[in-house]
Amino acid sequence: MRILLINSNTSELVTEKVLAGARLAASPGTELAAVTSSFGPRVIASWSENAIASHATIALAAQHADACDAMVIAVSYDTGLRGARELLAIPVVGMTEAALLTACMLGGRIGMIVFGRHVLPMYQDVVASYGLAGRVAGWRAIESAAPYSPGAHDELDRVIVGEARDLVERDCAEVIVLTGAVMAGVPARLQPQVAVPMLDGISCGVRQAELLASARYPKPRQGSFSHPGRRELVNVGEAIARRYGAGA
Amino acid sequence: MRILLINSNTSELVTEKVLAGARLAASPGTELAAVTSSFGPRVIASWSENAIASHATIALAAQHADACDAMVIAVSYDTGLRGARELLAIPVVGMTEAALLTACMLGGRIGMIVFGRHVLPMYQDVVASYGLAGRVAGWRAIESAAPYSPGAHDELDRVIVGEARDLVERDCAEVIVLTGAVMAGVPARLQPQVAVPMLDGISCGVRQAELLASARYPKPRQGSFSHPGRRELVNVGEAIARRYGAGA
Amino acid sequence: MRILLINSNTSELVTEKVLAGARLAASPGTELAAVTSSFGPRVIASWSENAIASHATIALAAQHADACDAMVIAVSYDTGLRGARELLAIPVVGMTEAALLTACMLGGRIGMIVFGRHVLPMYQDVVASYGLAGRVAGWRAIESAAPYSPGAHDELDRVIVGEARDLVERDCAEVIVLTGAVMAGVPARLQPQVAVPMLDGISCGVRQAELLASARYPKPRQGSFSHPGRRELVNVGEAIARRYGAGA
Amino acid sequence: MRILLINSNTSELVTEKVLAGARLAASPGTELAAVTSSFGPRVIASWSENAIASHATIALAAQHADACDAMVIAVSYDTGLRGARELLAIPVVGMTEAALLTACMLGGRIGMIVFGRHVLPMYQDVVASYGLAGRVAGWRAIESAAPYSPGAHDELDRVIVGEARDLVERDCAEVIVLTGAVMAGVPARLQPQVAVPMLDGISCGVRQAELLASARYPKPRQGSFSHPGRRELVNVGEAIARRYGAGA
Amino acid sequence: MRILLINSNTSELVTEKVLAGARLAASPGTELAAVTSSFGPRVIASWSENAIASHATIALAAQHADACDAMVIAVSYDTGLRGARELLAIPVVGMTEAALLTACMLGGRIGMIVFGRHVLPMYQDVVASYGLAGRVAGWRAIESAAPYSPGAHDELDRVIVGEARDLVERDCAEVIVLTGAVMAGVPARLQPQVAVPMLDGISCGVRQAELLASARYPKPRQGSFSHPGRRELVNVGEAIARRYGAGA
Amino acid sequence: MRILLINSNTSELVTEKVLAGARLAASPGTELAAVTSSFGPRVIASWSENAIASHATIALAAQHADACDAMVIAVSYDTGLRGARELLAIPVVGMTEAALLTACMLGGRIGMIVFGRHVLPMYQDVVASYGLAGRVAGWRAIESAAPYSPGAHDELDRVIVGEARDLVERDCAEVIVLTGAVMAGVPARLQPQVAVPMLDGISCGVRQAELLASARYPKPRQGSFSHPGRRELVNVGEAIARRYGAGA
Repeated sequence: MRILLINSNTSELVTEKVLAGARLAASPGTELAAVTSSFGPRVIASWSENAIASHATIALAAQHADACDAMVIAVSYDTGLRGARELLAIPVVGMTEAALLTACMLGGRIGMIVFGRHVLPMYQDVVASYGLAGRVAGWRAIESAAPYSPGAHDELDRVIVGEARDLVERDCAEVIVLTGAVMAGVPARLQPQVAVPMLDGISCGVRQAELLASARYPKPRQGSFSHPGRRELVNVGEAIARRYGAGA
Repeated sequence: MRILLINSNTSELVTEKVLAGARLAASPGTELAAVTSSFGPRVIASWSENAIASHATIALAAQHADACDAMVIAVSYDTGLRGARELLAIPVVGMTEAALLTACMLGGRIGMIVFGRHVLPMYQDVVASYGLAGRVAGWRAIESAAPYSPGAHDELDRVIVGEARDLVERDCAEVIVLTGAVMAGVPARLQPQVAVPMLDGISCGVRQAELLASARYPKPRQGSFSHPGRRELVNVGEAIARRYGAGA
Repeated sequence: MRILLINSNTSELVTEKVLAGARLAASPGTELAAVTSSFGPRVIASWSENAIASHATIALAAQHADACDAMVIAVSYDTGLRGARELLAIPVVGMTEAALLTACMLGGRIGMIVFGRHVLPMYQDVVASYGLAGRVAGWRAIESAAPYSPGAHDELDRVIVGEARDLVERDCAEVIVLTGAVMAGVPARLQPQVAVPMLDGISCGVRQAELLASARYPKPRQGSFSHPGRRELVNVGEAIARRYGAGA
Repeated sequence: MRILLINSNTSELVTEKVLAGARLAASPGTELAAVTSSFGPRVIASWSENAIASHATIALAAQHADACDAMVIAVSYDTGLRGARELLAIPVVGMTEAALLTACMLGGRIGMIVFGRHVLPMYQDVVASYGLAGRVAGWRAIESAAPYSPGAHDELDRVIVGEARDLVERDCAEVIVLTGAVMAGVPARLQPQVAVPMLDGISCGVRQAELLASARYPKPRQGSFSHPGRRELVNVGEAIARRYGAGA
Repeated sequence: MRILLINSNTSELVTEKVLAGARLAASPGTELAAVTSSFGPRVIASWSENAIASHATIALAAQHADACDAMVIAVSYDTGLRGARELLAIPVVGMTEAALLTACMLGGRIGMIVFGRHVLPMYQDVVASYGLAGRVAGWRAIESAAPYSPGAHDELDRVIVGEARDLVERDCAEVIVLTGAVMAGVPARLQPQVAVPMLDGISCGVRQAELLASARYPKPRQGSFSHPGRRELVNVGEAIARRYGAGA
Repeated sequence: MRILLINSNTSELVTEKVLAGARLAASPGTELAAVTSSFGPRVIASWSENAIASHATIALAAQHADACDAMVIAVSYDTGLRGARELLAIPVVGMTEAALLTACMLGGRIGMIVFGRHVLPMYQDVVASYGLAGRVAGWRAIESAAPYSPGAHDELDRVIVGEARDLVERDCAEVIVLTGAVMAGVPARLQPQVAVPMLDGISCGVRQAELLASARYPKPRQGSFSHPGRRELVNVGEAIARRYGAGA
């Protein structure tokens, strides 16, 4: 099985971290491919960058999905998720969607940790769009640029653990979701210091993508996630044009 | 006052209809400018086209907003609304957002008419994202390609009136919103045949944009709608790069 | 255009402040008239006073609406709003309704400031009745009688600014609504000290009333906001009796 | 124990029917008193009449509550409920509130029958204001003026039974609430023809009022339902003035 | 009238406290019977014990309901409520359900006090299952084993009063519900120290059970609360088998 | 990996069908064990049977979980789910929970098919308890006893396909969940006749259980899903007593 990881940002460093984190979660037989956008934001941290990166998601999906069995959107805003899901014949999951739904099966309400107060409302929007706002125990925003620099981050680790514990103590969170594609693998590392399960979107995304790929549900032939059919677009990349040109 | 109307599609015909409809609603002193995307879908009718057009919204906003006092997103999915609102220093309203909020002031629950069952869930998503799902009385989807061809559409008119009346009769709708940028001006024309107010997004959008422009609220300096600051993006249009390069 | 401002309280001082605040917001061509109730509470500050003032709203609406193009309920509980909207042929907006809906277009969640913990649940009820409870970031109640005494209120100003900033900092409010008819104009004055837009109901109410008046939506002929028809009432003011006696 | 039934309308016929229905539900030792408003609508059937009758509720409560142990608002919009609850030291229940909460204890979702489509949104508002919209299985509106004329109403009975059964069959209602003060006693009479319990607000209101009176909960000394304290009102009835003049 | 109180736990001490508390609330003519489970948890304090005790509720209901007019589930998780309601021909109320619905009639939002953070999510689940989550002002969890030991509990009393006041002050609670069957009678004793009404489930349960019993609503003949009919069960107690064997 | 399937009913036939369906979904290396309750309902079809079977779930979990890596509750009411999740150290998923969450990743709103109107409210309760009521497009109840008899069921197949299609056509369902443990494998068989993905709980449950088992999240040490610790229970099976006796 081959899973495609899409980084709709243009930062190779993040793609590498995503791939490394994904490898820890993938099943033995699973092959992973990770691609990076050729245009758009270095790292999405605003509504407007997210809007641009939606296009990047479609572009990457159109170009790289062909030989793959499932795709994971490796951007924690799940940028362009519904569009890619509609356009492709293979399963597509968002990393935050996957983390939230997996967390639901561990029971109870979810503590959410995000990076930066500026983007907190964007994550609230994402969660609400899945109808899961009622499952959230509380939110914490960490202000730190450390995740995007190389090396160990002991201080950041301490802050993450502190916020996770605070969500458990004060907000009765029964499971923690740590957002940020760049956080792939971090929850597993910090888990011993936190009393409830701690999840990241990349590992959940890879696992749920494997699950959906092996379930072999058919592509919808009706509804908003069926292929849009032959559509006319102008001045878009060749790969995109091809996807719409052929029709369903 | 100068209001910019953004058609994130690439169809000039729609832009013309939007501009004509907007003129009927604009105040005497208001100057209108309407621009069309140079890339992307001819007419958005799917999640994936909408994702591509989000980029188009930001591109148009970045390029054309400078001499304007407010901007209206003239695409009824309000494509890229939050991004444009964050990036620009002027007020930005979505046409469907404006229609829904204006409808709220007429009282009671709203009957929604959309074009095509394929896109119905997309509109439900838009309405839910504003927290207004509870204000909807009911939905009707009309299957017709007529809106995008020139000339009179008597049959389509009859269908619209029929659906509006049905929403009033069966779902107790107290006001009707007719979606579709191309429908600009149609509600006013059909109003005599419908017993409750009927609104379109373009006229509401223009009016609310005028209102916000004259209110002169300051650009937020904090929160997710403050300018994202100096950000690095690659391979994006010059106008976009300039907006992020300068910082807040 | 002539806009009627209804103070369903019996305090002339508040009416004057409302009128002064309204003038700052009204468009050049707009004529404003403000009327005060001849019976009922001096200043509504309880559920029971609000119930009495509902009658005052209908009485004022019945008597003064004739030569007007739209009406604003200049009481921040939007007292009697639905009743006036149903009875009159002109648009009627509540000042808090207008503030909330205008705030929605500035994006994100709304920080609410009210005067007095005793009335806080009344405002929560008002917001919930519009289906907008989910748009509220947080509530703050200020205990102060200063707003109803003449003169400058430096200390109160400091408290308002403090609460507004706290809503932004701790609750991630992206826009602030300052309730209280007597607060008309205050947000504009304090705006430089607050990092997100700050709105008052009177200015929003006047602007939205102008908008609705110029849009010329028809009076509903069906539904709960159509005129109730010829109804029998006893021992009510002449103006009220006349409104129902004539039928729709 | 003495229970006061308040008809905020001016129709003696309704008061009589309410009293007759209440007697069927009251406990042996309970004394019932029913009073009718001296001003306002004959029978509330619109938002505006309801606004006027809010004042009537306060007036009746202020004048007649003194020797009573609890009060029932015998108007199915629960007109002025929160105001009377705040002003008086005795328990106050709304007839529809009582019916809904009693219905909740019979389990499952509630089928609602109202008289007139014009008032349906008013009832939806009432239910939503209690946070119980999610408990409603479905709504039916019956168009008939029969309830307000004397004599037997076989045809109306048939329609009510038909709508109740339809709510059970199609909407899976597990209990029926028949609104309308004038319907007091009717559900009990028609019950044999309906497969799930059928409730009216008057009988539920009387029973819940008895329950609250015997429970002897203290009057709140804090919060929005504590007495508003000494307040200044002008040109209101003597009884009202006295209630506010004395303070808490 | 005879009311059956079911303690689905196996602790006689709790049953005694429940019965003592119930006597303070019951009407003069009411006879009370309290029974204790012969198997299962001593005191439910976890999801799994609650699952076992659901069976105990059905067993007790099947065995003891025959000569009774109504039943109260004297376990504050309302364990097995819907099952007992369906199986029996008499009214069945949960003690927490009764407290919540009674609290609703006192107006405003409810402050909830529970014993133990471990069980807090269980109570949130109970409240949400009635659709009343929106009526809750706030939650407080007290860690104390004192309730289950004999004698006076001055320190515990102080803590309860402190938490109740805090709910009023900080969360604007307008009424308090103190959970825990063992707390029967405590709210009445502490009431003088708290400014808003304070309720316990046992007294509310007894009163609402009396109310429903005297209302004599029919057993549903349709829907999920009608008797399930003749069903086959194996290795269950005789009393249970008999209830299903006979059919409806 | 070894997955335990728990049938909290006492019907071996259903256990066999569950096991056969599970085998179609399980990964190559997965070993499956299915156990049947020794007491309680033959097939749960009512609230009261479900309450009894909650105990059965805990009994089966306590007795059989030891050598297993994850457990699936093979009863479509997810009977006793939270209790088993708390008591055991291995992951526990409910079959309907798993189906719903998996359906969420296919996008859009879910069409629900259940067997019997009597149990429809029970399923609505289950879905609401996960906070997913807003994701449901519509419900259909099929009245048929055929699923529990052996042999082919052509007529039933036709009905299921018809209801599924109707959910897609009229309610815009974008994915279908067919409830009922006995339906394991049926969606896959009927899939070619339905235009959107069709899921059953057993296959989803097995897959999600595998996923959780391989993810190796730690058992919570805090919160309502941590082990309840040493607890005293009387007259329960040995296996249950052992689980609580040892403490966490």
